[in-house]
Amino acid sequence: MKSIITSLYHTVGGRRAAMVALLIGASAGAVHAGDMFSDSRKGWLEIAENCKPALHETIYRPVAVVTPVRDEQSFQNWRYREAGSPDSLIYSRSFKDVESVTVDFGRHMTGFFSFNTRILERCQDAPVRIRFTFGELPAEINTPYDPWPGTLSRAWMQEEVMNITNIGETIEIPRRMACRYVKIELLGASNDFDFALDDMSFRAVSSAKGEIEMPVATASDRMRKIHDVSVETLRECMQTVFEDGPKRDRRLWSGDLYLQSLANRYTFRNFDLTKRCLYLFAGLSTDDGEVISNIFEYPEPHPQIGSLCLSYSLLWNSTLLEYLRDTDDYETARNLWPVAVRQVEKALACVDSEYMFNPNLKPEGWFFFDWRDGLDVNTAMQAAIIFGIHQTAELAEMLGKSDEVRSWLPVAKKMKEASRKRLYDGKTGLFVSGGDRQVSILSQTWMIKAGVLDKKEARKAINAALANEGTVMPGTPYAMHYLVDAMILADMPAEARDLLETYWGGMVDKGADTFWESYDPDDDFISAYSFHPLNSACHAWSCTPVYFIHKYPEIFI
Amino acid sequence: MKSIITSLYHTVGGRRAAMVALLIGASAGAVHAGDMFSDSRKGWLEIAENCKPALHETIYRPVAVVTPVRDEQSFQNWRYREAGSPDSLIYSRSFKDVESVTVDFGRHMTGFFSFNTRILERCQDAPVRIRFTFGELPAEINTPYDPWPGTLSRAWMQEEVMNITNIGETIEIPRRMACRYVKIELLGASNDFDFALDDMSFRAVSSAKGEIEMPVATASDRMRKIHDVSVETLRECMQTVFEDGPKRDRRLWSGDLYLQSLANRYTFRNFDLTKRCLYLFAGLSTDDGEVISNIFEYPEPHPQIGSLCLSYSLLWNSTLLEYLRDTDDYETARNLWPVAVRQVEKALACVDSEYMFNPNLKPEGWFFFDWRDGLDVNTAMQAAIIFGIHQTAELAEMLGKSDEVRSWLPVAKKMKEASRKRLYDGKTGLFVSGGDRQVSILSQTWMIKAGVLDKKEARKAINAALANEGTVMPGTPYAMHYLVDAMILADMPAEARDLLETYWGGMVDKGADTFWESYDPDDDFISAYSFHPLNSACHAWSCTPVYFIHKYPEIFI
Repeated sequence: MKSIITSLYHTVGGRRAAMVALLIGASAGAVHAGDMFSDSRKGWLEIAENCKPALHETIYRPVAVVTPVRDEQSFQNWRYREAGSPDSLIYSRSFKDVESVTVDFGRHMTGFFSFNTRILERCQDAPVRIRFTFGELPAEINTPYDPWPGTLSRAWMQEEVMNITNIGETIEIPRRMACRYVKIELLGASNDFDFALDDMSFRAVSSAKGEIEMPVATASDRMRKIHDVSVETLRECMQTVFEDGPKRDRRLWSGDLYLQSLANRYTFRNFDLTKRCLYLFAGLSTDDGEVISNIFEYPEPHPQIGSLCLSYSLLWNSTLLEYLRDTDDYETARNLWPVAVRQVEKALACVDSEYMFNPNLKPEGWFFFDWRDGLDVNTAMQAAIIFGIHQTAELAEMLGKSDEVRSWLPVAKKMKEASRKRLYDGKTGLFVSGGDRQVSILSQTWMIKAGVLDKKEARKAINAALANEGTVMPGTPYAMHYLVDAMILADMPAEARDLLETYWGGMVDKGADTFWESYDPDDDFISAYSFHPLNSACHAWSCTPVYFIHKYPEIFI
Repeated sequence: MKSIITSLYHTVGGRRAAMVALLIGASAGAVHAGDMFSDSRKGWLEIAENCKPALHETIYRPVAVVTPVRDEQSFQNWRYREAGSPDSLIYSRSFKDVESVTVDFGRHMTGFFSFNTRILERCQDAPVRIRFTFGELPAEINTPYDPWPGTLSRAWMQEEVMNITNIGETIEIPRRMACRYVKIELLGASNDFDFALDDMSFRAVSSAKGEIEMPVATASDRMRKIHDVSVETLRECMQTVFEDGPKRDRRLWSGDLYLQSLANRYTFRNFDLTKRCLYLFAGLSTDDGEVISNIFEYPEPHPQIGSLCLSYSLLWNSTLLEYLRDTDDYETARNLWPVAVRQVEKALACVDSEYMFNPNLKPEGWFFFDWRDGLDVNTAMQAAIIFGIHQTAELAEMLGKSDEVRSWLPVAKKMKEASRKRLYDGKTGLFVSGGDRQVSILSQTWMIKAGVLDKKEARKAINAALANEGTVMPGTPYAMHYLVDAMILADMPAEARDLLETYWGGMVDKGADTFWESYDPDDDFISAYSFHPLNSACHAWSCTPVYFIHKYPEIFI
């Protein structure tokens, strides 16, 4: 899915007569010589730094010792059975007799694990060697890692081998973990003394604080559970930035940020964190002014070099718009306005003279909408540009800058017309995408979000796509968010509620403490990385049920 | 070898009419009620703490990248071949291409390894996982550890698995290592960026400082090499106590201390370290006043519970005597005199009314002289008690306390007579030991050290033992030290020199940078722990060539 487009048509300097950006006199096509925002970056990054939140700490202790059970009826074939208390099964026994044990903290946590050791008999005459494996899900711990089948780094697996030289010293493992379960295995000890593991605890960290209540007390247990898991998902991802996943990838993505900022509005209302993230993206945009798809914080904030993603950079504009609506922080919006303009200009540079998105006009970067294999993104991208223009024009209006974007709205209109003409099948009521005229859910949802269809057409498109054999279905909660969103726009409240309850509720039924990065109700082993234990089981883009429930209580409660 | 004697004849309270201690009116047989040195312990431990030395630091860098070669002509079947420089083979290459590499620091070091990492392409988007294996010897690194065959803790093997979250950060591995070689293996990395390992270094620590010259410039290269390796062995073991081995067991043993204090006299002359160790043993002796065999420093100095060893506690007296000779520190010797008296009393409690050492009179502890399988220690222990009485009487004389020990010398005399009568075979000129009348080298050497034989008889005993088929030979450099010592006492300078040059020189020929814990010229794989990589390759009790060379230059140069 991660298709880096290297266009055959790319012209150095980026000028192409066919670009709509040039037709309307925008500067989008030009690669700027030098650094477009050089005067502002330093100040923007300083503002971001000043908004860096403190982390709240909570200490948790294991609630049970658990035994793994292989069970094909359980999610990814593994579940845990409660075996007893840490006091009786671990702390009071020689760890040489325990040998291997798993504890359950009863909840998802992000932070730092610590433990102590205690002499039971004689005194330590040698180090002991212990392996700790941390897992968000049972299968993550119980599936062998080696030989490594994953397409990402093996080091993402949360496995630490410790040689303990001084029994009796409290040890906090320096690496931040995200987990509910910890497996502990003895790899080496001396015959000459006995020791016990003692006082395990977990110092959980988050910049989010407090409990979030359901808006109406009469909600069903199921919906309440979906709500609460959604809140925990967001909480765990709220660190010193809005992270995508506290286990993996632990970084700030502009697409995830958009959904997190929506959920944040109805929960922790930590708008300074959104502000920080907006400024980080602005301060670290390319010389050419493009907001990059993702940012790392350490050792100092820096973008993933070359990781451009047009669908994501446009959502940065939407995040800025929503932030302004939430906070009335006009100063920030005005500061960052030139960056928002630039994202639209960069998008318009990918629109040809027929008012169609053309990936060949974007020599670098990708167009991400979902991890689903084989999804054609051309139609969704056409819609995302239209949506981006609308959102940015709304922002302009709030800032009294509509004059600056006057030329865009006719383009959006022409793009909508071109979409209907070239991508919409009036007979089936479906949008298609690419040379093979692929039918996907996402082509419909994004066209609905872009306002290309009226409500009736929108309903038809969704229903037809769902009924159509061979439709490419969403593969992630991220994509599914936009389907719920489109159903609401299409006046399909029952369907929206049903989808939310079935899809996110399905994860709850399968034991989710936090919502997962990937979820396919029909395939527990779906993974974008060829190894399901690599998946993040607490992923920002899955946190939006809380947004829907609070924004549309009449639908979801 | 580690034979814990649990005597059938033991009487609670320890009183036995047969003990020579009672016959001569000493208090040795009585177990003291309460804590014998309770008034002094705290002060003694404070003195020990005040003598804790600073550690000197030296930074080393790898001198070469090396390739392991399996070679049956090499010690333990492995050697390294130089492959090039770290600059060209590691620092300038993607570690994903290097994957596995070994560096050679060119010398034995004790301390802390650190390294850096450096981005070569793109930026870090995932942790990397690296295994570091530290070895004193090539076979230690190239012999698989699992499934674990050793009888000591697997955690002694110096193997650290690191997950590196922040490329670019200098990391010092917190565990103190003892090594010359470091193997580095990549266990996990991302496809999306390249990095190099960079700037490896080793912060070596020792409380010894400076270079030690051969006493005479004309020494042979071979003897000079033996001298220098001996110095390095001592240096590496000199930390905040005289350790037995910086890799393993990293603690203070009273037997090793005796030999180290002798070598220290002719090298680093850090007598405060000896003082510290003497006081530690005194402060941590049993309630009954017995010096325990070994002491750990962390988290605070404490003895290995129950680890009594009569042959070692008597050597504490010898160490005190040698310390007084070196320093004229009469204050310390007077402070500790009651402890020395107590060690002899405890020894006399193991001597029966026939003036023979009887292990059944010592219900706890062991009698260590060597790791050699099957060695009978009864005769050596008889001699060690005689030697201990002599040494303590010398100490008494220096302190003007001969009156206090007046009753001991006749006992020593009677023990010598009993030894000749019951253990010495006048025809063969050999001492035998135990019910099976075992002939061993150590029975001879200790009897010689105890002055039971005159020089002529001593020569005969050594020669006969060496010529005798079935003699139990020494298995460690510790035991071999006493053979060299005995040869000198027996006026066998050529044999002493030949033995030192052959035995310790044999280790040098096989590549020793420091002298080993166990060495049998005919068995490279000898190990007291069923796994030769567990052996310490830098062991205190092997460091005495420097003592012999400096004390007897006329013999050894």
